Amino acid sequence: MSHPNDPKLKSFIDVAPDSDFPIQNLPYGVFSTPTSAQRRVGVAIGDVVLDLAVLEAEGLLKTGADGVFAQGALNAFMALGPKAWSATRARISELLRHDTTTLRDNAALRKRALLPRNEVQLHMPFAVAGYTDFYSSKEHATNVGIMFRGKDNALQPNWLHIPIAYNGRASTVVVSGTPIIRPQGQLKPPTAAAPTFGPCKRLDFELEMGVVVGGASQMGHMLTEAQAAEMIFGFVLLNDWSARDIQQWEYVPLGPFQAKAFGTSISPWVVTREALEPFRVQGPTQDPTPLPYLQQKGANNYDLTLDVALRPDGAKDYARIARTNFKYMYWSSVQQLVHHASGGCAMNVGDLLGSGTISGPEKDQRGSLLEISWNGSEPIELPGGIKRTFFEDGDSLSIRGWCQGDGYRVGFGEVEGTILPAKG
Amino acid sequence: MSHPNDPKLKSFIDVAPDSDFPIQNLPYGVFSTPTSAQRRVGVAIGDVVLDLAVLEAEGLLKTGADGVFAQGALNAFMALGPKAWSATRARISELLRHDTTTLRDNAALRKRALLPRNEVQLHMPFAVAGYTDFYSSKEHATNVGIMFRGKDNALQPNWLHIPIAYNGRASTVVVSGTPIIRPQGQLKPPTAAAPTFGPCKRLDFELEMGVVVGGASQMGHMLTEAQAAEMIFGFVLLNDWSARDIQQWEYVPLGPFQAKAFGTSISPWVVTREALEPFRVQGPTQDPTPLPYLQQKGANNYDLTLDVALRPDGAKDYARIARTNFKYMYWSSVQQLVHHASGGCAMNVGDLLGSGTISGPEKDQRGSLLEISWNGSEPIELPGGIKRTFFEDGDSLSIRGWCQGDGYRVGFGEVEGTILPAKG
Repeated sequence: MSHPNDPKLKSFIDVAPDSDFPIQNLPYGVFSTPTSAQRRVGVAIGDVVLDLAVLEAEGLLKTGADGVFAQGALNAFMALGPKAWSATRARISELLRHDTTTLRDNAALRKRALLPRNEVQLHMPFAVAGYTDFYSSKEHATNVGIMFRGKDNALQPNWLHIPIAYNGRASTVVVSGTPIIRPQGQLKPPTAAAPTFGPCKRLDFELEMGVVVGGASQMGHMLTEAQAAEMIFGFVLLNDWSARDIQQWEYVPLGPFQAKAFGTSISPWVVTREALEPFRVQGPTQDPTPLPYLQQKGANNYDLTLDVALRPDGAKDYARIARTNFKYMYWSSVQQLVHHASGGCAMNVGDLLGSGTISGPEKDQRGSLLEISWNGSEPIELPGGIKRTFFEDGDSLSIRGWCQGDGYRVGFGEVEGTILPAKG
Repeated sequence: MSHPNDPKLKSFIDVAPDSDFPIQNLPYGVFSTPTSAQRRVGVAIGDVVLDLAVLEAEGLLKTGADGVFAQGALNAFMALGPKAWSATRARISELLRHDTTTLRDNAALRKRALLPRNEVQLHMPFAVAGYTDFYSSKEHATNVGIMFRGKDNALQPNWLHIPIAYNGRASTVVVSGTPIIRPQGQLKPPTAAAPTFGPCKRLDFELEMGVVVGGASQMGHMLTEAQAAEMIFGFVLLNDWSARDIQQWEYVPLGPFQAKAFGTSISPWVVTREALEPFRVQGPTQDPTPLPYLQQKGANNYDLTLDVALRPDGAKDYARIARTNFKYMYWSSVQQLVHHASGGCAMNVGDLLGSGTISGPEKDQRGSLLEISWNGSEPIELPGGIKRTFFEDGDSLSIRGWCQGDGYRVGFGEVEGTILPAKG
C-alpha cells in the first residue's frame, strides 16, 4: 500500500491540478446538509465531501472508538492520538484510490457518502479548549516595533529568547464566513485628554496559521520537542481580527484584551500535520541560540504560500494585498508548544495556537493593514481608485494558503469574513 | 414562606454560630464519597453536605430540567438561569427549615441525602469555560506601580478608566487542596546579560475573589449593568499563584503568560450572589467618573472579610499574614463583566473572572507576598523565627472569607494549596 502522501496516488474522484484537496491532502471538517442538520465529520477531496459518519456506520472505517465521526466536533477523534490519526488517514486514502472498488463501485454508498462540497454547510471543525496567540514573526515584530518605538528599539529584549504569546478568547473563535461585528471600545488618541467609547476606527486583520492541538499534557510537566510535535493534529488558516486603537489604550501592562476578543476566524478544513510532512523546511537561523528547552533538531517550518485579498464594500472582486509564506516564522509551532507547557501549563485536546502575524522580508509580504498601510500613513490603492488604511464596514478579507507539490497542491481553502457595522 | 436570606431562619441541622454554612448560605459544590465515586452536586450546611442528586431523584427538588444535579459540574444547573437558581435555593431552604418535616422526619432519606462534610471528597465545582483575571484593586495596582515605576507614575494612565484584565489559562484552574508544582521558566535578573531556564525563585500568591458566570452573552453584543448582574451565579475564593521573576521577563508587550499559567486555585463551594445580597455595599468613589457604559446605579461591592495565612514548610500551624476586605475593590464585578463584553466578546456559562489581587489601604491588608515583603526587601516574620519573602517548597497558603451577619456568617470555607518542588 502506498503512503497517503505519495504524489503518484490518484483517486477515482476527479481532482483538478489546482484543487486544494487532492488525495494527498484529506483534511477534516465538520458539516451538515440542507436535508440533514446533524453535524458530522467529513473529509474534502476535489469538489466533494466524504461523509466519515456514513463510512463508520457501514463498518468501513474503524478507529477503535464508537461514533467519533457522528459528532459535531473533531475533539473525540483527536483524543484517540497520533497512531489512530495516521491509521485513519491511511484507510481513507485507501478507500478513495482509483483502484479500490469498495466505494468506487457501490453507487448507493457513493450517493450517501459523497456530497457536493458546494451543497454542504461547514461549521467550526472542533471545540476550542483554549486559544493562545503567539507573536513569532521577526519581520512583523520588527515592523510594529519600528512604528511604535523607532528602529533602534524595534525588537523587545525578550523577543529573541521567548516565543512571546498571550492567552486569547476561545469563545469568539468562529468559522470562515461568519460576519464580524465592528467592536466598540475605549479609544484615546495620544492627543486626547480622556478616552471616549465608540466604534473602533482602526480595524485590522492578522494573517496567521493556527495549530490544532490533538493531545494533552499534564499540569506541572514540560514537553520535549518530540512530544510537542506528536501532539499537533493539524493546521488551519487563522485571521486574528484586531482593533488597533482599542489595543493601544488598553494593553499596558497586561496585554491586549478587548482589542482581540471580538472575533478570530479559522478555515473550516483542518489539514493534518501528516499531510504537510513533504513540505517541511528549516526555519530561519536562530541567533542567539535558544535555551536548551527550546532547541529543535527537526525542520519544523513549512513552505506554505499565503495569499491575502481584500474586497472593499460594494466591489465585486477581491484584490490581492499580500503574498507571503509560513516558512519565514522565527519560532516554529513545535517551539511554541514546548514553551507553552514549559511553566507547567496543562495543554488540552482542542487547544488552538495562533502563530502570530506572518510577515515576510519584503514590503508586499506584510500580514496586517497596520504594516501594509504603515500605521495608516500609506493607504493601499485598490482597483477602481478605492483606498484603504483600515477596514470600512462592508469590507471583506480572504486568506488562502497551500503547499505546492509536483503536479498537486495541499491546500487549506479559505478563511473569509465581512465587517458589519458596530451595534448602536 | 420566609426568604432564604432571613436571618431568623433555623435549620433542623445544627449549625455553629461561627460556621461558614448556615441555612442563610447554601453554597453549591461537587462531591463524591469513598463508596460512590459518581460526582454530583451538593449544598453545604453546618458540618454536612446535602446530596441534591438524591433529592432530585426522589422528586423533592424540581428544576424543570432532568438530572442537573447528578452531574460532575454546576454548568447544566447554572444554564437554567437566575429564576431557576432562586427557586431552587428557596426550595432547598424550605426543605432544611427546622419546621419542615419532609426530610427532617424521614430517617432513611436523611441517611442517604445528608453526608458528613469531612467524609466527602470535593471536586472542581464547575467546568471553567474561560478564565479572565482582572486587576481592579487600586491599592494593589498602586503598590506594584510604586515598586516598579516609582510613586509619581504608580498608576498607569488607563487604570482609572478601564477595569484592566488579561485572559488567563482555564486548563490549570484547580480546586482547593491540589498541590502546586513550582514552575520553571526563563529568568533574567536585570543585571544578567541573558536569561537562564530554571525553577521560579519568586513564587507568590494573589488573594482574589472569583466570579462564576452563570449566563451567556452573544458575540458582538454589549451588556447593561442589570444584565451583567443577573449573569453572576456566585463567587469563590481564588488564589492566582504567580511567578514574579518569570513575569518580569516575559510580560512586555503582550502581558503575563507562563508566569500565571501553572495554577489557579479556587474554593470548592460556590456562594450564590443571592446569599451575598444582604452584604452589598457601595464601592469607593470613582473619580474620574467612568464612561457611561461602565456607570453603575447599584451598590455592587460586598463587605466580605478575607484572611490569608501561611504555613511554612515543616511547621504545624498557619500564621495569619493579611486580613483585608473585598469591599475595597475599585471596579466591581458587575463593571468587570460589562467591560468584558463591551467589545463584543461572547461570555459563556462557566466563565470565571478573577477580581484581581485584593489589597486594602493598610500595610497588613496586602494581598500578595510581593506587596507584603515589598518586593523581597522586608521579609515576613513568622512564628519560630521563620522568615519569608516568597514561597519555599513545602509552604502552604490558606485563604478564608466570610460576610458577618447578626449572629451568623455567610462564608466561603477555604482555598488552600501547598508548593511542591519543580520537576527536575
